[in-house]
Amino acid sequence: MWQLHQFALCPFSRKVRLLLGEKGVGYELKRESPWERRDEFLDMNPAGQVPVMTDEPRKILLMDSMAICEYLEETVDKAAMINGTATNRAEIRRLVSWFDTHFFQDVTAPLLHERMVKRLVTKESPDSKALREAMKGAVRHLDYTDYLLGHHNWIAGTTMSLADLAAAAQISVTDYLGGIDWKNHEETARWYAGMKSRPSFRPLLSERMEGISPPAHYDDVNF
Amino acid sequence: MWQLHQFALCPFSRKVRLLLGEKGVGYELKRESPWERRDEFLDMNPAGQVPVMTDEPRKILLMDSMAICEYLEETVDKAAMINGTATNRAEIRRLVSWFDTHFFQDVTAPLLHERMVKRLVTKESPDSKALREAMKGAVRHLDYTDYLLGHHNWIAGTTMSLADLAAAAQISVTDYLGGIDWKNHEETARWYAGMKSRPSFRPLLSERMEGISPPAHYDDVNF
Repeated sequence: MWQLHQFALCPFSRKVRLLLGEKGVGYELKRESPWERRDEFLDMNPAGQVPVMTDEPRKILLMDSMAICEYLEETVDKAAMINGTATNRAEIRRLVSWFDTHFFQDVTAPLLHERMVKRLVTKESPDSKALREAMKGAVRHLDYTDYLLGHHNWIAGTTMSLADLAAAAQISVTDYLGGIDWKNHEETARWYAGMKSRPSFRPLLSERMEGISPPAHYDDVNF
Repeated sequence: MWQLHQFALCPFSRKVRLLLGEKGVGYELKRESPWERRDEFLDMNPAGQVPVMTDEPRKILLMDSMAICEYLEETVDKAAMINGTATNRAEIRRLVSWFDTHFFQDVTAPLLHERMVKRLVTKESPDSKALREAMKGAVRHLDYTDYLLGHHNWIAGTTMSLADLAAAAQISVTDYLGGIDWKNHEETARWYAGMKSRPSFRPLLSERMEGISPPAHYDDVNF
């Protein structure tokens, strides 16, 4: 059986978990806190990042969330998530990279730093200017998802794809950390309510990071 | 015909150009300086980054260097560069991401900032501490490529792959900017001499960025 090394609020691990859920692949969760930089973990992944996926009996070791997603797409027939023509597939991959890179850098990473790392690791207070910037970034990014979803029902086109899972992964961590104001983002809220209702999403919404509580609407499908 | 929007020292555009060269795909270069943030360019790519690849008669617009590489891999039969079993392919993609993310952040990005952006855009002097850190990062990363190349002849295994092109793209920009000390990195130097000899590499090595000269060994195959 697969083992997924991750922590509850890692958006890249969430993307992989959503894909595993949609494809119906079973796995066991292994908690890893990459900021502790454990030697055994660094020996496994020199980049020091989660997710890492292992299957010890089969001696398979996968890392880098996009490499893992492409691997699952190539090896599991069910629920294709990088699909369509070559240009459709390029658009899906462009948008996965957009959420993994730009949404993460502008929004998720600063919120995780201010509201998780400072609370659990360095015991500092969050910086209110950094929080304000991240929340302004979230508004800008949700304006973009509104725009994308105004053109078709899903982030990258007419069917659900890995771009939806990547976007929902970043948005769910941001929402957990109180970084999203759902007012004025009706297109994205409608789409996200649908994502939250999926069986692949339920296990993520019920998890908690110790010492950090999400807002009351976080796991409510009718938020 | 394809048009590739890029600037001479962009490592991600170099990776795409090496792949286009290996696959024998013709293209026209279009100079774009993303730091100018031209409105027409941002309309084309909201991420504001090169490379962007367009084919106007066919109305194709591709962006994000990995999405472009996967597109070329899917649509051009010649010279497969993400090949082998699913685990081989995952290892290739992991290493492409390693060079695109970690080598770039630790080495190429600070060197481009200190030695290109400051000279051409902000007219400041480079910060010697930042340069020292980037060059220490280059030594650490070349220790890793030495390690990888000590296990097999190519970065990700027994055949040339996109991981070799991604690594060579980052290393060539770093070398142009005087960031690499080739002493004590014999495995990587041997491999890089082979990469430099490839027809796909020659057009890159003959290009110059205005106002910035590379060291004498830069385009010498027997450096």
